[in-house]
Amino acid sequence: MPEQARRFILASRPVGEPKPSDLRMEAFDIPTPGPGEVLLRTLYLSLDPYMRGRMSDAKSYAAPVPIGGVMEGGTVSEVVASNNPGFAVGDIVLGRTGWQTHAVSDGAGLRKIDPSLAPISTALGVLGMPGMTAYAGLLEVGQPKAGETLVVAAASGAVGSVVGQIAKIKGLRAVGIAGGPDKCRFVTDELGFDACLDHRAPDLPGRLAAACPQGIDIYFENVAGPVLDAVLPLLNTFARIPICGTIAHYNDTAPPPGPDKLPAVWRMILTKRLRVQGLLVSDFGAQHGAFLRDMSQWVKEGRVKYREDIVDGFENAPRALIGLLRGENFGKLLVRIAERSR
Amino acid sequence: MPEQARRFILASRPVGEPKPSDLRMEAFDIPTPGPGEVLLRTLYLSLDPYMRGRMSDAKSYAAPVPIGGVMEGGTVSEVVASNNPGFAVGDIVLGRTGWQTHAVSDGAGLRKIDPSLAPISTALGVLGMPGMTAYAGLLEVGQPKAGETLVVAAASGAVGSVVGQIAKIKGLRAVGIAGGPDKCRFVTDELGFDACLDHRAPDLPGRLAAACPQGIDIYFENVAGPVLDAVLPLLNTFARIPICGTIAHYNDTAPPPGPDKLPAVWRMILTKRLRVQGLLVSDFGAQHGAFLRDMSQWVKEGRVKYREDIVDGFENAPRALIGLLRGENFGKLLVRIAERSR
Repeated sequence: MPEQARRFILASRPVGEPKPSDLRMEAFDIPTPGPGEVLLRTLYLSLDPYMRGRMSDAKSYAAPVPIGGVMEGGTVSEVVASNNPGFAVGDIVLGRTGWQTHAVSDGAGLRKIDPSLAPISTALGVLGMPGMTAYAGLLEVGQPKAGETLVVAAASGAVGSVVGQIAKIKGLRAVGIAGGPDKCRFVTDELGFDACLDHRAPDLPGRLAAACPQGIDIYFENVAGPVLDAVLPLLNTFARIPICGTIAHYNDTAPPPGPDKLPAVWRMILTKRLRVQGLLVSDFGAQHGAFLRDMSQWVKEGRVKYREDIVDGFENAPRALIGLLRGENFGKLLVRIAERSR
Repeated sequence: MPEQARRFILASRPVGEPKPSDLRMEAFDIPTPGPGEVLLRTLYLSLDPYMRGRMSDAKSYAAPVPIGGVMEGGTVSEVVASNNPGFAVGDIVLGRTGWQTHAVSDGAGLRKIDPSLAPISTALGVLGMPGMTAYAGLLEVGQPKAGETLVVAAASGAVGSVVGQIAKIKGLRAVGIAGGPDKCRFVTDELGFDACLDHRAPDLPGRLAAACPQGIDIYFENVAGPVLDAVLPLLNTFARIPICGTIAHYNDTAPPPGPDKLPAVWRMILTKRLRVQGLLVSDFGAQHGAFLRDMSQWVKEGRVKYREDIVDGFENAPRALIGLLRGENFGKLLVRIAERSR
């Protein structure tokens, strides 16, 4: 019996936290590439918070995954057969082939990765979408100035870790927030943030105020929820809030109970002349060249460090995504599906 | 018995809607200007929504008026005595001399008005702080582009009326929201907005959607509350929300009951890549020259029209301010305190 391919399809839309049964693994025949196509074997699948949004049919910036459709996701793959002169067997490519072990592509949307420059998995992390999100969100939206104070939550994660390290490169004070003492130690000792606070420990507002004696000039928003509540009173006049994510609310099934905080925040945006601005990495294509140049250099020089949290085995992807939404990962979360052939 | 001066002091901090007794009128001797000083007789006192904030000791961008202190406010005054070579008796000046019939000044912060250019009261309206707020808020923060759709509430008021008219000059579709059919008729028929909706009539969300077939690109925020609720679902990707005021909440004594709308709005800022930014007119000194040049020209050409709601009698100022916060004024609200001597 020939080797079969496997994929995860969206079986049902989650209500609240996703259940493993919301995703169903299917076997399918390894497809055959047609003229001009390549066959890809997935090596790494990236797991990212935005995936929760794709499982839901709430209106968003991208269409939801249809019920029965293959879950979307960024991948690093190896070309194992090619009818496309642009790709050779053995090429490593970045793509969005989704939660499946094999895929056929006509080459559109694939980007070749040079494995001699950096580990290929980094194309899904520090040198990929999360790194670019951090880079564009901080530099383009956040407009950092040396001497300012930045706060970012999920500070040991794929985006937050890079945000804080770029802030340090740019001469800011970087204060992270993370879940648990191990992550916080990593954020300060390894990544070089000035401080990192455990959001699970008591009195986050008081500890955050102590860690930000000059107030907060940039709050890079990954989480919302109680972290946002602690940040708001500390914001300085003309502070910027790039909104990249609100993971604390991704599993909400209804708006949280009152009181309604919106009027007070709206008033604060006025009185402090805040700038609150949403960002998607796809809006910053013009900055991608500068990102690759700067970030490759920073990684090579050791000025930007990264940590990967690698889960082995395709079948473990749903549990890993559920864990990501709970904050259980420690570093950029990846599923390793296969090894390179050579 | 010599003529006495009068002033309103803040007698108590309002709880909810201000009461007339929160302000107390006092008589005092007309002051005598010292060396380098001028004596001013107030002709017009401007009444503006921000004054509610000054009556409160909640943290804001400006210190509150102290209990027992003279209420702050912009004024147009006549110089009736001068020991300052920069000012002659009869000069008309714009200043911030507050709620009083007479004031002494050393000239700092006074600006001479040329009565031959426009009615002097316009220095408190279309050619003054509200006009400049509209100009800077729309052009600098809103970044309007021809063909876009703008929505502004309090559309017959001092700021909103100018916002919509500048939007029309810049080639946008301008949709106003105002309280009652008379104001709405004025906004469309006199000011030239494309549409104006009465927020007191039923189904504002449905009518607003019908009036904005291409969605909303700029929502100039004066009010918040139910108008904001109606606007949010209609915002286009990359829409801008300059926040100038949130008058629907100025008399709130506590955050409104739930659910908490903040997480959904925060998420929408992300998915639609909105830019929400607070503004104070005082941040835009660099644009003041351009404002005076453009706005004077537009008023002269009849491209920007204005309406004043003039209350006679200094003693009526508190009632007029309470009415302003209820939306009872129709046009820029001014108290006429005295006539020019000549």
